[in-house]
Amino acid sequence: MRFELTKDFLEELRLEIKKQNSEWITEKVLGLHFADIAEIIDELNNDQAKYIYYLLDEDQQADVLMELEEEVRDRFLKSLSSKEIADQLENLDSDDAADILGELSDKEIQEVISHMEDDDAAEDIVDLLNYDEDTAGGLMQKEFIQANLDWPVDRCLVELRRQAEDVEQVYTIYVVDRLNKLVGFLSLKSLLFAQPKSKISDLYSHKNIISVKTTDSSEEVARVMDKYDLVTVPVVDFQNKLVGRITIDDIVDIIKEEADKDFQIASGISEKVEANASIWRSSRSRLPWLLIGMFGGILGAQVISSFEGGISEIPALAFFIPLITAMGGNVGVQSSAIVVQYLAKGSQFTNIFKRVSKEAMLGLLNASICSSIIFGIAALFENTTLAIVVSVSLFVVIVFAAIIGTLIPLILNKYKIDPALATGPFVTTLNDVIGLFIYFSVGMLLYNM
Amino acid sequence: MRFELTKDFLEELRLEIKKQNSEWITEKVLGLHFADIAEIIDELNNDQAKYIYYLLDEDQQADVLMELEEEVRDRFLKSLSSKEIADQLENLDSDDAADILGELSDKEIQEVISHMEDDDAAEDIVDLLNYDEDTAGGLMQKEFIQANLDWPVDRCLVELRRQAEDVEQVYTIYVVDRLNKLVGFLSLKSLLFAQPKSKISDLYSHKNIISVKTTDSSEEVARVMDKYDLVTVPVVDFQNKLVGRITIDDIVDIIKEEADKDFQIASGISEKVEANASIWRSSRSRLPWLLIGMFGGILGAQVISSFEGGISEIPALAFFIPLITAMGGNVGVQSSAIVVQYLAKGSQFTNIFKRVSKEAMLGLLNASICSSIIFGIAALFENTTLAIVVSVSLFVVIVFAAIIGTLIPLILNKYKIDPALATGPFVTTLNDVIGLFIYFSVGMLLYNM
Repeated sequence: MRFELTKDFLEELRLEIKKQNSEWITEKVLGLHFADIAEIIDELNNDQAKYIYYLLDEDQQADVLMELEEEVRDRFLKSLSSKEIADQLENLDSDDAADILGELSDKEIQEVISHMEDDDAAEDIVDLLNYDEDTAGGLMQKEFIQANLDWPVDRCLVELRRQAEDVEQVYTIYVVDRLNKLVGFLSLKSLLFAQPKSKISDLYSHKNIISVKTTDSSEEVARVMDKYDLVTVPVVDFQNKLVGRITIDDIVDIIKEEADKDFQIASGISEKVEANASIWRSSRSRLPWLLIGMFGGILGAQVISSFEGGISEIPALAFFIPLITAMGGNVGVQSSAIVVQYLAKGSQFTNIFKRVSKEAMLGLLNASICSSIIFGIAALFENTTLAIVVSVSLFVVIVFAAIIGTLIPLILNKYKIDPALATGPFVTTLNDVIGLFIYFSVGMLLYNM
Repeated sequence: MRFELTKDFLEELRLEIKKQNSEWITEKVLGLHFADIAEIIDELNNDQAKYIYYLLDEDQQADVLMELEEEVRDRFLKSLSSKEIADQLENLDSDDAADILGELSDKEIQEVISHMEDDDAAEDIVDLLNYDEDTAGGLMQKEFIQANLDWPVDRCLVELRRQAEDVEQVYTIYVVDRLNKLVGFLSLKSLLFAQPKSKISDLYSHKNIISVKTTDSSEEVARVMDKYDLVTVPVVDFQNKLVGRITIDDIVDIIKEEADKDFQIASGISEKVEANASIWRSSRSRLPWLLIGMFGGILGAQVISSFEGGISEIPALAFFIPLITAMGGNVGVQSSAIVVQYLAKGSQFTNIFKRVSKEAMLGLLNASICSSIIFGIAALFENTTLAIVVSVSLFVVIVFAAIIGTLIPLILNKYKIDPALATGPFVTTLNDVIGLFIYFSVGMLLYNM
């Protein structure tokens, strides 16, 4: 029942676009859901995309435009004139229109706005451009439905019918007082079953009204909507006046972006970059972490060189350097990943001692298992002394790495630094250096006994 | 305006519970949003939790119960009798009730069900227990509103009023034919403004009806709801008969769980574990990756030992082992993380060649920068030959690591294995071994020249 995009379909489509077969496209493409049409256009070049786009009706155009992948949309918009962009904006929700304008230069914005025919819509968009895009103000749309506290139900219905034309999806009606201050909300359900002469003030809910302020960060909005299971949230200004609403689909995007960002930071990529960012930008986002790693490697070299005598004497000590550093790194990353996720869930009253001692216990368990195994293998292939050195130091390294991996994100979090920074090159590098020091110290100690 | 839980408040609350001061609790706690009450109860012990819980009214109890952290809820439910659990279930949505029952043994389920007084509700719950919890069937609830195609609007309103009692949040009315097959939907908005005698068949939308099948996986449901920007999605059986609906809040949870799982897999933790899982379970989830790392370390030891002569001759070669393995690991993880995210976004028509060559270019750039820096540092502290060895091999290692880090997730994905597996100990271990081999080969080559 759902549309599934295939390579064969794309090939056929490209052929029919070449033939300018608008009949075939009308039949096979235009009836699809806008998200499917966007998925198709994502795979086409600009000329092919335009051919389909201009066969769509105005509402479809707006919907499809917002569903396109960002780089496809940017490419597509660049090929339009200011007048053409203005026409597209008129059919978009104000938040989407503002997002698109936000990508343009000030001069281009002015040009596009001057071409817009609907003054109210233009004003809404210009207003939204004032807010930082990572705040509730930057996320909200001006399309929402509001009712006045002292309206009767029948007047409310008349007003709503007028307002509802602009608002695609109505979930909740916000109730305001004469000063436009948010005082509660009304479900469509209750309105549907109400007597025409009863008043909004008798019907509305005014307990536990959850709203966000224009200046709240997008992460805070996501947290609030998630915590209170909201599909939309009203946005108010500092005087508690209702100025917009945010819908859940924007929040789903933010939750996904947050997760992506954490995953990247933990993998040693510092800014949020897309897979198709330029090579220069990609390099800039990765180099800082590589340099940290390199700095660690140089420190490691210092540690080893201070034990140079030991290596000349017992070259076999060098064999297990990679094992020690790899295990310290892996254990550290595991511990810090768990702590980072724990912190991300927003448990505010973290008992640091409990967490560290649990990871230390777990470290002891894993260390016992790993060092027993490595003792057996090293004893088999090398000599017993080396086997003891490797297994004892591996034991110590694992326990240390577990504790460090736990502590660092907790400390970062305490100082309001993103703890995800810890789960990556940072913890690995630190554990490398400490691990090497432990390994060679144990080695020198045991060999000199 | 929103409630903020503080340590001071908790302390005072614990004191007032001890004093059994129900008046204070009624004033300060019972009026809060259920999500806030749940947040408070999460921080209390079982007896304190129960004291507050039984002061709540029935609807609040159900809402609070579902908002509790999983382990707190489990602990709380364990302290209730079958009869008490049955009473709680009657106030829950069917999907939440089934989730709670799903945690119990077959015998306990039977006992709880036998205590339920509402036979219809019990039947719905039992029916839901048949579905795998990771499918649309396992996620859906039986509470939804449906209208028959040939009803007039006024009849529809009467029926809806009856149905709506059970359904807390109404977003969309599903339209079915006489055989209960899903044929379209109706927005509350259109119903609100319709003439009483017009028929549903004249009002409803029947184009691009998106539904999911009971057997669709929860990931597929999340993908569909995200792609089509849905707040609810109807669930149908194999005959296209309407059997349930899924709401967006469940999907937000799934998206977050997916992201957590990927983050954990990439950090070398194989099963989804919570921070407060038992030490044994935590150990089991981490050991496999540690053993892979250890296996890699042993292979690395083999590589180095095969160059043992070189190390005895030039012990300084050992100094830079950690640098080489760390850089190979870091670069590999960076590349694979980007590819994993690219794949997760669901671009189906991946051009492998383009991606690999981009990462290789990026590798060349980063390799040039890093190896120039290390050349300078090594030449300063050690001798020129060693500096050449380290910088040349670092260059090769970085480029190789970038290519391997890109290829492995692409290959895993081709064979339908979760590519996130690549971004972690797997890529790091492989790059360690290859890096060591490159380093010592270059070293032997240059020193013997």
